[in-house]
Amino acid sequence: MQAKFNQQLLSIISKLPAITAAPRFVVALSGGVDSIVLLKLLVGFQQQHSGYQVIAHNVNHGLSEHAEQWNEFCKTFCNELNIELLSSKVNIQKNSRNSLEALAREARYQCFLKKMADNDIILTGHHQDDQLETLLLALKRGSGSTGLQGIRSYQTFHSGYLVRPLLNFSRQQIIDYAQIEGLTWVEDESNQDIHFDRNFIRHQIAPLLSQRWPAIAKSVSRTAQLCQEQQSLVDEIAAEDLQQCLEMRLGDETLSINSLINLSIPRRNNLLRHWLKSNGLDYPTSKQLSVLWEEVALAEQDKQPCLKLVKHTIHRYLGNLYIVPIQSIALPKEPIVWKGESLLRVDKGSSLNERTLAIDFSLVDTAILKQHTITCCFRKHLNSKLTCQPEGRSKSRSIKKLLHEFQVPPWQREQVIFIFIDEYLVEALGVWQCQLTPNVELPRLQLAMCSS
Amino acid sequence: MQAKFNQQLLSIISKLPAITAAPRFVVALSGGVDSIVLLKLLVGFQQQHSGYQVIAHNVNHGLSEHAEQWNEFCKTFCNELNIELLSSKVNIQKNSRNSLEALAREARYQCFLKKMADNDIILTGHHQDDQLETLLLALKRGSGSTGLQGIRSYQTFHSGYLVRPLLNFSRQQIIDYAQIEGLTWVEDESNQDIHFDRNFIRHQIAPLLSQRWPAIAKSVSRTAQLCQEQQSLVDEIAAEDLQQCLEMRLGDETLSINSLINLSIPRRNNLLRHWLKSNGLDYPTSKQLSVLWEEVALAEQDKQPCLKLVKHTIHRYLGNLYIVPIQSIALPKEPIVWKGESLLRVDKGSSLNERTLAIDFSLVDTAILKQHTITCCFRKHLNSKLTCQPEGRSKSRSIKKLLHEFQVPPWQREQVIFIFIDEYLVEALGVWQCQLTPNVELPRLQLAMCSS
Repeated sequence: MQAKFNQQLLSIISKLPAITAAPRFVVALSGGVDSIVLLKLLVGFQQQHSGYQVIAHNVNHGLSEHAEQWNEFCKTFCNELNIELLSSKVNIQKNSRNSLEALAREARYQCFLKKMADNDIILTGHHQDDQLETLLLALKRGSGSTGLQGIRSYQTFHSGYLVRPLLNFSRQQIIDYAQIEGLTWVEDESNQDIHFDRNFIRHQIAPLLSQRWPAIAKSVSRTAQLCQEQQSLVDEIAAEDLQQCLEMRLGDETLSINSLINLSIPRRNNLLRHWLKSNGLDYPTSKQLSVLWEEVALAEQDKQPCLKLVKHTIHRYLGNLYIVPIQSIALPKEPIVWKGESLLRVDKGSSLNERTLAIDFSLVDTAILKQHTITCCFRKHLNSKLTCQPEGRSKSRSIKKLLHEFQVPPWQREQVIFIFIDEYLVEALGVWQCQLTPNVELPRLQLAMCSS
Repeated sequence: MQAKFNQQLLSIISKLPAITAAPRFVVALSGGVDSIVLLKLLVGFQQQHSGYQVIAHNVNHGLSEHAEQWNEFCKTFCNELNIELLSSKVNIQKNSRNSLEALAREARYQCFLKKMADNDIILTGHHQDDQLETLLLALKRGSGSTGLQGIRSYQTFHSGYLVRPLLNFSRQQIIDYAQIEGLTWVEDESNQDIHFDRNFIRHQIAPLLSQRWPAIAKSVSRTAQLCQEQQSLVDEIAAEDLQQCLEMRLGDETLSINSLINLSIPRRNNLLRHWLKSNGLDYPTSKQLSVLWEEVALAEQDKQPCLKLVKHTIHRYLGNLYIVPIQSIALPKEPIVWKGESLLRVDKGSSLNERTLAIDFSLVDTAILKQHTITCCFRKHLNSKLTCQPEGRSKSRSIKKLLHEFQVPPWQREQVIFIFIDEYLVEALGVWQCQLTPNVELPRLQLAMCSS
């Protein structure tokens, strides 16, 4: 097993682009048989391949009364192997039983992250039978081939990587190795609790399948790998298609509907999924995708359709699709006067649930304040009869008409920031610069908008 | 249920490009509850949507002692509904139990085909729970997202379509409907035999999963649909990439390795899979793909590497990949003289296992035979000192050198057909035409090669 393990690990490392020198291996050590065997194999690897540093990291989730004992067990084991052990402790709020698993994982990875050095490789003991469980859970969720990618043998993790060198070994192979090597380990009693979906599969379903088809875990691993490869192909296509369909509109990454129309349905759906995901949204359901296309993108020209998602709506405006956060920006009652701040917040800033809006003044010399007053207004602060002549235009028009002409989407019009130097409007920030008033000499401001 | 069924069926029909007029529906009727309900619903559909013809087709596989009774049952049911019933009988050779299911399906579809009219829509009663079984079987086979597409709601079938309008209904919904409508049906006792993999899943696994997660069959259906969509996307990409990488070489569809090198690994694998499949081969395994690329395509220049598959080998020759049938062509002992046949077989033609090779003479006027003798030779029949001057070349060279210069792959060189008119070599068929001998007037022959 050691030889095959070394080979697997070397093969994975060779695929990690950022790894040039020998990295530090950090084993996620729970004390269970998988991670105990992983650490033992890794020490064996280290003896044959010099230059690698190996440490272990035990996270106490505070969920079991035995967690302290497990940590002690890990200490003893690491001592015997002469391996440094990091220990972390977290407190998890218990919600439903199923979300508990996700919360524990999240907390665990946060701990790894906190004590991580650049280029660290975090290793976990996931194996073939875990993969079988993961794919059956993905089938249950109906998450399509995205979920069927299962556990990856490696993936980037902040400044380093997460690696699973045991993914091609079965649980039985791992236990056999532990017994041959005379290793001892701890059993997490929660692994027996079939209220967890994963344990239900592990104890009630997987044994029946493996008894009938001894190679099923291996077959399922193969499926996971094929799905991973296919996903990376469709991601590549989406990124290419995005280049063709993406249009920047006043700082927004919008999609041109005219370009989307030329794509086949599967390709368009793939691109829409990718666009939403790359903007931090969840993957949409098939139903949402169909509404997005049929009822938003293709709505009649006089309609202002939108699709509401969890924290965003997708709007169509002038032939393009926009992702718009649902959280509004609370606008201040009065105009805001710049007093020299490097970053000037211009939203009301009252509630945690609201988005923030700020102006970056870092490129403006504060000496300007000796001679001028700089004021930031929203549309509601403006005199409704105010007109303005943007640079390059031959005449003045009302602000309302200009916002329309400059194709500011309706939902953004109240949030446009108008910059005044003394009594002169000089800029609709990010939209237009104003023609300077003859005979009035005003400084040029270099400003940028920051919203979150 | 009738209303939802009608809607599902109309939605599927609207997606079938070839269906313009109202087609004939042919229900695959076994007498089991799924197909009984399907036929009943279809009759209901027909009452509300005029113009559709509905018939049923029962296939007796000869596998059950009750098959005759089932056929009688179908006759009675169709009589009551006033529906025409076609009956077919087949004899299946029993091999292993698992292949029996595939053999029966194959035989059944052959029967449908035999009695099929153009544009017929064959309907089967597959439902959501069948889809769950199919996907679990695909996981067990490890066939990746190809297999995870499961059962499609429609697909082309010869000159018509295969349609599954019950795919969004559960087995329980179908049984409930049958009971409400007071329908009776037959039970195929082989459905209880858990020696069949499908029945093992149906009786031992699916009930446990559905008890825990009542919506699992629905989720799995969604996964199947997502995988279908993704497959159609990667097929589209493969077809596009094939355009870029395909090079015709002496009638062979070869792939240019230089073009393949520019593709990402997932994209190249996708294209290679597609190329093999579209040439009638099975999808290769991941291992075969990796050998094909690393050890065949990228082998050192002086090597003549190849990958052996079931009935073909994949060769590299001068920077291109070729699919070469393993079956050889048995060459005749003596040259073959044309006697006026429209299609002249030039292989030895002795064994069923060998490939055939023929020349299409249909464009040649047989009157030519009054003045000339036309002889077809292989390389082994030629005088080893024979030289030839191809059209456009300045001098004669040996046949051996010419075959090399014209880039005939080594495995094809013995199979090149040399056409003689009287004593003059006029053509290496499909490779070069010979310069005519001065002062000798010979007719031009329009010949084509046919191999299978």
